[in-house]
Amino acid sequence: MRATLEELAGRVGAKAIGPADLVITGVNTIDRAGEGEITFLTNPRYARFLPRTGASAIIVAPGKDTGDLPRLEADNPYLALAKIVAEYCAPPRPAPGVDEGSFVDPSAEVGEGVRVFPGVYVGPRARIGPETVLYPGVFIGEEASVGADCRLYPNVVVLSRCRLGDRVICQPGVVIGGDGFGFAPDGDKWFKILQLGVAEIGDDVELQANTCVDRAAMGATVIESGVKADNLVQLAHGVHVGRDTVIAALTGVAGSTTIGRHAVIAAQVGIAGHLHIGDGATLTARAAVMNDVDPGEVMYGVPARKRRETFRLYGALSRLPETDKKVRALERRVEELARRLSVLVDDEEGKDG
Amino acid sequence: MRATLEELAGRVGAKAIGPADLVITGVNTIDRAGEGEITFLTNPRYARFLPRTGASAIIVAPGKDTGDLPRLEADNPYLALAKIVAEYCAPPRPAPGVDEGSFVDPSAEVGEGVRVFPGVYVGPRARIGPETVLYPGVFIGEEASVGADCRLYPNVVVLSRCRLGDRVICQPGVVIGGDGFGFAPDGDKWFKILQLGVAEIGDDVELQANTCVDRAAMGATVIESGVKADNLVQLAHGVHVGRDTVIAALTGVAGSTTIGRHAVIAAQVGIAGHLHIGDGATLTARAAVMNDVDPGEVMYGVPARKRRETFRLYGALSRLPETDKKVRALERRVEELARRLSVLVDDEEGKDG
Amino acid sequence: MRATLEELAGRVGAKAIGPADLVITGVNTIDRAGEGEITFLTNPRYARFLPRTGASAIIVAPGKDTGDLPRLEADNPYLALAKIVAEYCAPPRPAPGVDEGSFVDPSAEVGEGVRVFPGVYVGPRARIGPETVLYPGVFIGEEASVGADCRLYPNVVVLSRCRLGDRVICQPGVVIGGDGFGFAPDGDKWFKILQLGVAEIGDDVELQANTCVDRAAMGATVIESGVKADNLVQLAHGVHVGRDTVIAALTGVAGSTTIGRHAVIAAQVGIAGHLHIGDGATLTARAAVMNDVDPGEVMYGVPARKRRETFRLYGALSRLPETDKKVRALERRVEELARRLSVLVDDEEGKDG
Repeated sequence: MRATLEELAGRVGAKAIGPADLVITGVNTIDRAGEGEITFLTNPRYARFLPRTGASAIIVAPGKDTGDLPRLEADNPYLALAKIVAEYCAPPRPAPGVDEGSFVDPSAEVGEGVRVFPGVYVGPRARIGPETVLYPGVFIGEEASVGADCRLYPNVVVLSRCRLGDRVICQPGVVIGGDGFGFAPDGDKWFKILQLGVAEIGDDVELQANTCVDRAAMGATVIESGVKADNLVQLAHGVHVGRDTVIAALTGVAGSTTIGRHAVIAAQVGIAGHLHIGDGATLTARAAVMNDVDPGEVMYGVPARKRRETFRLYGALSRLPETDKKVRALERRVEELARRLSVLVDDEEGKDG
Repeated sequence: MRATLEELAGRVGAKAIGPADLVITGVNTIDRAGEGEITFLTNPRYARFLPRTGASAIIVAPGKDTGDLPRLEADNPYLALAKIVAEYCAPPRPAPGVDEGSFVDPSAEVGEGVRVFPGVYVGPRARIGPETVLYPGVFIGEEASVGADCRLYPNVVVLSRCRLGDRVICQPGVVIGGDGFGFAPDGDKWFKILQLGVAEIGDDVELQANTCVDRAAMGATVIESGVKADNLVQLAHGVHVGRDTVIAALTGVAGSTTIGRHAVIAAQVGIAGHLHIGDGATLTARAAVMNDVDPGEVMYGVPARKRRETFRLYGALSRLPETDKKVRALERRVEELARRLSVLVDDEEGKDG
Repeated sequence: MRATLEELAGRVGAKAIGPADLVITGVNTIDRAGEGEITFLTNPRYARFLPRTGASAIIVAPGKDTGDLPRLEADNPYLALAKIVAEYCAPPRPAPGVDEGSFVDPSAEVGEGVRVFPGVYVGPRARIGPETVLYPGVFIGEEASVGADCRLYPNVVVLSRCRLGDRVICQPGVVIGGDGFGFAPDGDKWFKILQLGVAEIGDDVELQANTCVDRAAMGATVIESGVKADNLVQLAHGVHVGRDTVIAALTGVAGSTTIGRHAVIAAQVGIAGHLHIGDGATLTARAAVMNDVDPGEVMYGVPARKRRETFRLYGALSRLPETDKKVRALERRVEELARRLSVLVDDEEGKDG
């Protein structure tokens, strides 16, 4: 990259404080940035590096004092950073073309500017939108469709009839449209329920490495536009994930559960089947959700509980070894009082007698 | 699909109630089914859709009143559904042939009717049984064998010498026969223990997307016939899973553990190594199993406990914040009683004095 | 394999007790070993098989009585076993060569003795060190480098600019250098933060099936030499794992966390982001680590606690249902005492009156 502090400020609606013509040639973290690089401070954990950073400028929130270090003040410094990086550091799109060593069925439609690397398979009647890149080992099944400007990294699998919107990114090893886990008990055996449905992925979705989105038994598993799912996530058949929801690594969502919009689901969460998670809900790491969750609710633990309940429970739990001791002590104390009381009553009775 | 209600009833041993010549052209869920489609009601959660379903018929348990809606009464409605779907909706098998752009070692044996898609690799002395389909990117290692009528979806890997039975289905990205996680401590380093064994998969097994079955250090990791494992499951070296056991997503089974027949293992379960899980045991979601489990037992939680213990513990836990308060209140109350008792004793002694 | 007991002893610095010229032709587990095979006893769980093993010799710790059965006494029997296996049972390296049906960019450097199987893709300016084996479906991105004597099993993906050291083993489906999960909130949407960094893997690292190591947002995700990670592990962007640390299956480490040397991280562990785990720490299975961990510390549970705290808590928890009952009983008992005390006081007051 190469831009002046002023140009950067203009690009992201930030305010440049420092020499406007300062030339920035790269971006780096606060502890590693050097001459010519701009860095950022968004996590207070890293504020200790500020006095000794080698950066030539820094992106911060408005009013943050950075001493002599030139700065860009942005209301949302993290977003400003992301936009600068997108503007100046984006890798070039691979040149278009269908490479030798790939297989594209004659009945498939491949848009303008598409790149098909060696080792790709595009099945009958599949459609690939313009400007999309299919890296080696990508499989696009019969009648599947991929929108415009998508990037499917190596070994991504999109099975038959599944549909991806525009600007979808699939990191390597993603599987879209594998069969749902559906079997009917048949005596001691399990009879496979053919999975007739599909998986539909909206626009601007990113699925990360080795994540799986199963096809529905009937109808569709739906991942709405803007959803981001981290590595090794399992989204079962018939799941519906609302717009702009984020899901962290190693989380599993069981069949037919619906998740609202803009929910935040942390890592290693489990959500049982046939539930509804409301819009804007937060499921914290390792939560095990066994009931519906209201919109905006924040859930913790196993089984998942609301914040207030959780904190009461965790507080009581942290005191439990001590409480446990107290109960034993109380038992002894009470028995001692009872004995003393008995003595007194006997005395009384003695007197009365 | 296209069949009359009577034909469907005949196929699955159900009873048709309604016009025998009603033509059914598809299957769909109760909330989405329309004209000509048959639906089903197996989960009471969806009974609310019954009055307003657009379906032309429904599969239910005997005696379920469906008003004017024609129905198939089946003792096991879910199984009846599965059989109807299998009968009428199965996708055609891909035409046989070994496609250009695949590699089949000259020493490999490939049965009748096998389809080998582009990008497949079949190694030396491997054997592929008749009617099996190997989708693009499948790898079959040296001396590995795959039985008859199997489907190995894109990018499935079966490493050297591993064996799959007949009618095995592997969803995309499954890895069979990766090395077990075995290392001997050698000072501060780890010395790799070569994994000399294999993985053996029985008949009618289904392994879903990105699931891993490691080869044994010695001998074999064994997945018996009829086992079904969901996405992203980890079955370590030397594990033995008995017939018809089902294992849900993101579960991990550590080395040398044996699991009996027809066990049900829910999602995100962890089972420690060298254990035995009895026939017909149930491990509920997120259970962490650290000891052997008796046949038929149902286990919950971390560490996994039996049902009765678990429910007692969970009950006590849900009361814990309140119990914690009570203990504090009791301490105060007891001290107050002790004070009152002391006063009384002093009075007594005063009188006596 | 084929060696005398004496030769084996010499190879691994063990002591042969029994006929020095006894010929050993294989290795097997104690319950399966037969004529000519050597077995081992390292886990006391399997000692019950000793009297009836069919093995011709056994590897044990010094002083272990094996009756008539010839033995190798080794200070570290497990390591002796591993070395014997490595010496006598290692599969031959595939013959070198670049196979037809692979793609190697003309600008890539491929060392001596490398084997490139069909279906491999090696991108522009990538470097492959001598004696390395790239199995079918492996992807090596632009400017990525792989050291000497590595084995990348089928469908392993190493994305652009990532670097692997020497003798690295990647089991099938490993993804190195997928984008980190980084998005800046932009109103209700998420703005992708381009992941500009790389992933760097040291020497002698083994990553097992379908494990993911993300590239850093900036700088590098670092997996130091000697690290071993089991199947389905998630190592997020900016993570740093120290030398010789081992990580078991289904564990997730969130962004920017550093882990020291020779730590042991069991299965299904979760570690939050931006933490530091000290050298030699042990995180037991399913631990959820939300704070820094001191060197050598052993952590358990959710949230992770030290051993002593954990055992106190677990003890108190196992007594909780009983403690809960006791508290209820105490309440009744105390109220009864209070009533009796009141009667006494009333009597006293009656007397005084």
